[in-house]
Amino acid sequence: MSIRIGILGYGNLGRGVECAVKQNPDMELAAVFTRRDPSDVSILTKEAAVCNVADVEEWKDKIDVMILCGGSATDLPEQTPEYVKFFNVVDSFDTHAKIPEHFENVDKAAKQSGRIGIISVGWDPGMFSLNRMYANAILPEGKDYTFWGKGVSQGHSDAIRRIAGVKNAKQYTIPVEDALASVRAGENPELTTRQKHTRECFVVLEEGADAAKVEKEIKTMPNYFADYDTTVHFISEEEIMANHSGIPHGGFVIRSGKTGWEQENNHVIEYSLKLDSNPEFTASVIAAYARAAYRLSKEGQSGCKTVFDIAPAYLSAKSPEELRAALL
Amino acid sequence: MSIRIGILGYGNLGRGVECAVKQNPDMELAAVFTRRDPSDVSILTKEAAVCNVADVEEWKDKIDVMILCGGSATDLPEQTPEYVKFFNVVDSFDTHAKIPEHFENVDKAAKQSGRIGIISVGWDPGMFSLNRMYANAILPEGKDYTFWGKGVSQGHSDAIRRIAGVKNAKQYTIPVEDALASVRAGENPELTTRQKHTRECFVVLEEGADAAKVEKEIKTMPNYFADYDTTVHFISEEEIMANHSGIPHGGFVIRSGKTGWEQENNHVIEYSLKLDSNPEFTASVIAAYARAAYRLSKEGQSGCKTVFDIAPAYLSAKSPEELRAALL
Repeated sequence: MSIRIGILGYGNLGRGVECAVKQNPDMELAAVFTRRDPSDVSILTKEAAVCNVADVEEWKDKIDVMILCGGSATDLPEQTPEYVKFFNVVDSFDTHAKIPEHFENVDKAAKQSGRIGIISVGWDPGMFSLNRMYANAILPEGKDYTFWGKGVSQGHSDAIRRIAGVKNAKQYTIPVEDALASVRAGENPELTTRQKHTRECFVVLEEGADAAKVEKEIKTMPNYFADYDTTVHFISEEEIMANHSGIPHGGFVIRSGKTGWEQENNHVIEYSLKLDSNPEFTASVIAAYARAAYRLSKEGQSGCKTVFDIAPAYLSAKSPEELRAALL
Repeated sequence: MSIRIGILGYGNLGRGVECAVKQNPDMELAAVFTRRDPSDVSILTKEAAVCNVADVEEWKDKIDVMILCGGSATDLPEQTPEYVKFFNVVDSFDTHAKIPEHFENVDKAAKQSGRIGIISVGWDPGMFSLNRMYANAILPEGKDYTFWGKGVSQGHSDAIRRIAGVKNAKQYTIPVEDALASVRAGENPELTTRQKHTRECFVVLEEGADAAKVEKEIKTMPNYFADYDTTVHFISEEEIMANHSGIPHGGFVIRSGKTGWEQENNHVIEYSLKLDSNPEFTASVIAAYARAAYRLSKEGQSGCKTVFDIAPAYLSAKSPEELRAALL
């Protein structure tokens, strides 16, 4: 029998989950839940239902794992503890500083309902976290580095769009090659914010807007751009649609550490991602953890889990015997 | 209370484990077991005992995890099922094709004794296996690549040393840059053995040996060199000691895969290691899994486990709360 998946929230991430479910033969999409009028929402999977989120409880026994595809700012802090009352859930909560609080809330609700809630699944938090953790456990004496990009930062693109005179904008975060090279060489550099990443902006102006003024406003924006070397390109709406409509991303997690009786040997562990579609990759990680949620629940486990708490084999459609024979 | 570690077999790997234990404050080295006369074996840790392997059973209640540092060809197939009768054990069994059989033997003995046996720990098998598995679970439609090096292959160095006229030799396995670049670009190339790695040999000849004959014998050696582009350098004994006495290694595990409704997006996941000391890094991975063996045993679990079966958090000295706050 297939694992019956529900998707709550049908934006980029929800559509990514729909595609990921299609690629996993042991899963099927049961229903998509939306805050919009279901008749206005058209999905790709012919066999799946589209329902209003108000009716979600009716699906309690018809969905094995509900994927929560809302945002971390306001949706997930409410939704994950709420829906874990009725379903095993997976979310991609990514406000790092608030993870401990979110964990406690979900854990309490999940233990009461006897369900599994896996939080903060994706690539950062998610696969990057896992790689930081494994590398720290292996090399207790060392230094961690995380670089992001080259990729689109939705938050920074939105910040530019809020400037008066800006019609459209896309911002790329780019790791500084020299900094990466130094880290990879095991030099353990101390790096400032400016030395790690640059920011490149592609901006479409409203008619009659003052380019110099917009450029200055971007480059001096606190938190977002002031601490970085920022480049601004003004381009046409046609150009931004043609060349900058994708949502690529990626990055590097590197740990450099010492071993030996006198710490005489150096080691570099590096994990990197190069992603054409940030939401589709995040969704693919989520699909694998949905399989884990289903299996943990079948075993009778309950409570909140993160990527740290789940043995790798739970993610794979292959049996333990197949994994040992083929991938170990 | 510290986790009391035993080391069985005191070669390069055993010494690496001794160094790794020193770097983990929650562990202490209790004893080293050797087949040699203990009075001939001098270890680095002042507080630890050196004992003959014949006396190992006396340590049954004084060691929490025994690290088996023998070879995969003849030692571990016998030792791991034998010593798991008395101890929780970790080994680095690396004969990939025989892992299923080794697992069954260790699992049976470990379940009978109520102990934990973690097998095939290190970097390949080990961290490379984990990364292959995670990447396969995330991107079900894709292609795997493993490259090794640049690093010393002990087996190939030994094979050269067995040739008549050869006094000493060191062989480096080197990944082909163009092949790596093509894989990283998501081109999914089909690569022959020759297209993936080259082999570079540094050879010291016995006095009066025929260099041309030795070079031909190396380059045409079946399995070891015939399928590769091989370079042979003849150097002096002084030069090989000065420049080639280390045991560096490393490599790359890359999975390239597609997502999207029409598989329109490509993703590349890459994990790489650059290691000054192959045995010390392997030992560092083993130390982390020794912690896991200890904890699993405390929970009352028993049987054989691999890296696929163990939740990442078991490897870390940090608490789950600390991990969520600091590394997620």
